[in-house]
Amino acid sequence: MPDAVGGPVFILVESQLPDNIGAAARAMLNFGLDRLRLVNPRPEWPNDRARALSAGAESVLAAAPVHRSLAESVADLKVVYATSARPRDLVKIVITPAQAAREMRAHLAAGTSCGVLFGPERTGLVNDDVALADAVISVPVNPDFSSINIAQAVLLVAYEWFQSGDATPPTVFRHGEYPPADKLHLMSFLDRLEQELLACGFLRTEHMRAAMVRNIHAMFGRMQLTDQEIRTLHGILTELVTRRLGQ
Amino acid sequence: MPDAVGGPVFILVESQLPDNIGAAARAMLNFGLDRLRLVNPRPEWPNDRARALSAGAESVLAAAPVHRSLAESVADLKVVYATSARPRDLVKIVITPAQAAREMRAHLAAGTSCGVLFGPERTGLVNDDVALADAVISVPVNPDFSSINIAQAVLLVAYEWFQSGDATPPTVFRHGEYPPADKLHLMSFLDRLEQELLACGFLRTEHMRAAMVRNIHAMFGRMQLTDQEIRTLHGILTELVTRRLGQ
Repeated sequence: MPDAVGGPVFILVESQLPDNIGAAARAMLNFGLDRLRLVNPRPEWPNDRARALSAGAESVLAAAPVHRSLAESVADLKVVYATSARPRDLVKIVITPAQAAREMRAHLAAGTSCGVLFGPERTGLVNDDVALADAVISVPVNPDFSSINIAQAVLLVAYEWFQSGDATPPTVFRHGEYPPADKLHLMSFLDRLEQELLACGFLRTEHMRAAMVRNIHAMFGRMQLTDQEIRTLHGILTELVTRRLGQ
Repeated sequence: MPDAVGGPVFILVESQLPDNIGAAARAMLNFGLDRLRLVNPRPEWPNDRARALSAGAESVLAAAPVHRSLAESVADLKVVYATSARPRDLVKIVITPAQAAREMRAHLAAGTSCGVLFGPERTGLVNDDVALADAVISVPVNPDFSSINIAQAVLLVAYEWFQSGDATPPTVFRHGEYPPADKLHLMSFLDRLEQELLACGFLRTEHMRAAMVRNIHAMFGRMQLTDQEIRTLHGILTELVTRRLGQ
């Protein structure tokens, strides 16, 4: 299996709770990763509870090899990261999940296989295991409440992996099925609105009129209206005017 | 309570599982957030299971008001985001968690209170609730496996919130208690190593010598050694040489 293809390998070391193994598989697949390995999982394995918590990512669990030692699990990998709170007694390079994602993209693009170690819930990875890693991934957190659930740690590294290769723009205007309106149609509605507001007396104070019209333009202008919505507004205006005329 | 101070309010709407409410509280506190509100939680409330899953964030749960309607829960907020998969039938601005974090930082700095809605596990937020939000937060995910656990969604928005105000450098070299060595000490060790390698015959091939020395320098040079580690290397070298002499 060419592990440099398709993203980094995630290795859960002596995980204690099937819930976390299942949630980790789900989080991986949410972000397009499916190369899971398990080192001495504590729960009975395979495990129904883990399958349930994977919420559809059973394939990731089913394909995950079970290793008897950490050394065995990383034997075929070239670059290995250890996730950990900042290690106190080791001289190590410590990087953020975002930096790890960038590095792994570069490594994998060059055909260099990568793995990420996640330790047991209660203790995290022991220093002996961290010492062998190329670098430590540490999530920047609230220093007063820094213990992150293992599945959450998997999620954050997977999320940053996906982000590093994702081109989703920060902001998108979703039109649904309708295209955004030409400015002509917006202006045409605003002209009509102004006429109706003049007719009903709302704009009767002459010296306020220009400012009021400008404010109305600003209000509707930032709504990024679609043609459908402008038709709706025309309809509303017609109904309001008709009722007024009918009174 | 001045909600513009201390970060955005997170609102869990009709959450079904106490595990998720507890995990959400934990994830919030991991990233320095503690303003949780609940709208009609389905489990019995307060809830021991939620407390257990919060793993120490009981204070967030205990302080969370329970509201009878979404409208009540957002009444005092000025900007509200709905988390959702990309809404199909609504005309909405859709933003990433990172963009939401940047926007909320700006809003809160200006004293504008912000909230984020998270929907029920099975269905997510209904369109009627999404329609009232200022914008939709959508996490970029694997389109073939896009359903994110609610506590994971809370984690990602909280993580990006923390990131947007965090100055952790992407890469840090952790020295532990020892300072990094002056280059003088590194070079001094490398000189000694070269002398020993000459003495033992390892560098006997004259035309290879320069290249070999350069490679050794590169190898040790990128280790970013501390003084303590250089002392360890000197000790190793001494022992190896002594054993050789003793043979």
